[in-house]
Amino acid sequence: MTPAKLRSQIAQGEWTTPTAGVLDNYQQANLVIVPQAEAYALLLFCLRNPKACPILAVGDASDPQVPLPGAAIDIRTMLPRYRVWQHGHLVAEPTDIEAYWRRGSVLILLGCSHTFDAPLRRAGINVSNAAPPVYSTTIPNTPAGALCGTLVVSMRPVTRVLVSQAVLVTARYPSGYGAPVQIGDPEALGITDLQAPDFGVVPPMGPDDVPVFWACGVTPQQVLPQLRSAYCISHYPGHMFVLGQRPDSFR
Amino acid sequence: MTPAKLRSQIAQGEWTTPTAGVLDNYQQANLVIVPQAEAYALLLFCLRNPKACPILAVGDASDPQVPLPGAAIDIRTMLPRYRVWQHGHLVAEPTDIEAYWRRGSVLILLGCSHTFDAPLRRAGINVSNAAPPVYSTTIPNTPAGALCGTLVVSMRPVTRVLVSQAVLVTARYPSGYGAPVQIGDPEALGITDLQAPDFGVVPPMGPDDVPVFWACGVTPQQVLPQLRSAYCISHYPGHMFVLGQRPDSFR
Repeated sequence: MTPAKLRSQIAQGEWTTPTAGVLDNYQQANLVIVPQAEAYALLLFCLRNPKACPILAVGDASDPQVPLPGAAIDIRTMLPRYRVWQHGHLVAEPTDIEAYWRRGSVLILLGCSHTFDAPLRRAGINVSNAAPPVYSTTIPNTPAGALCGTLVVSMRPVTRVLVSQAVLVTARYPSGYGAPVQIGDPEALGITDLQAPDFGVVPPMGPDDVPVFWACGVTPQQVLPQLRSAYCISHYPGHMFVLGQRPDSFR
Repeated sequence: MTPAKLRSQIAQGEWTTPTAGVLDNYQQANLVIVPQAEAYALLLFCLRNPKACPILAVGDASDPQVPLPGAAIDIRTMLPRYRVWQHGHLVAEPTDIEAYWRRGSVLILLGCSHTFDAPLRRAGINVSNAAPPVYSTTIPNTPAGALCGTLVVSMRPVTRVLVSQAVLVTARYPSGYGAPVQIGDPEALGITDLQAPDFGVVPPMGPDDVPVFWACGVTPQQVLPQLRSAYCISHYPGHMFVLGQRPDSFR
């Protein structure tokens, strides 16, 4: 399998399932599409909160082509599934968005933690293929205009002797949220019950496992309603855009 | 000396000279100020050309406060000298810009190579305090709207046995252009005469010195005229904004 073959299967409707654990040596990306009028505010928020919102690429207004070298890729058919909001309401979860793309639409690709899962595994850190548990925190984001909200984190249990290794490995991937934002102290993030994440399921944790927290791509998604945009399109959770680039090309 | 004391001297008009080699363990920044209408296009260009245009901070429209934690800093008085263009013509080189700041002005801080000069010296690499020679190349930038142009590079001679070290040290500072873009082959960049830079003077080079090329902050300055902006303000060459942050805080 190659990214191009996978995207071809996706474009033909033959692949509609999650992309976690698939081609995980390649960069994967979260997608946000907004009208041009809102793109500046969203980019400003991302630039001020780079840990949770690493910007990989921004398209030209009205142009659905992904502005990355290597291949001509139309973003409207190249994700397994999308979510479409209109005036704040979820209106569709389609497998292509040709009917929803508008004149003035701007595509924004943001980093994704699938990018560092494979390197973590190669370092001997047992990362599940299932989505990690995700928690809202009480840590405020850096505001940008009307956009603010709080940091959202994902958690992976790491054996105590490998925590330092987990920091070093993920720090190499700013396009996958980089180094952890917190190690071992959920309460410092305002997380009162580790067993009650906002999304996902907590994997079994042994006595030597430390909860390690990384910034999470749900952070920008949670501020999107504050844009009060006429429409917004994103990837369906877990159904990411698989790039032809390796994560190293974004360092 | 501290960054706050230096900025206080600058604000009072007591310091109007270059900042290279001053407080060089702190982050320094290039400044661009444009009208809000042009800010999006310029940010898009910077995002697509991150080696030469690392974005450190973007202000709120109309607000001259630098949006970084630590201290309230009004950008209009905090650089030793500025350059002001109106409709493409250089109209002033003042030591403050209170008369030129407009409703809707957006301040953008971009990384600066002063950031990695001190670490290079600590690694035994003899970097001059004088501005390095700067060359236009034939390498096209990634275009963004009407903005395109070619990459501009700076050159520092590095003893052959220390070239690898120079790569490793500067790679740690993406807020200072990161790792070199080219090592040892000026012709591959379209530079036909190393002794004839576009700006600056070539330092003496010994037989064991290799010319090493880094992306340069002149790159975004050269595309600014393509914005066709009513006005634009930048730092005066070599007269940078000295932040209270260490470069490590931008990694």
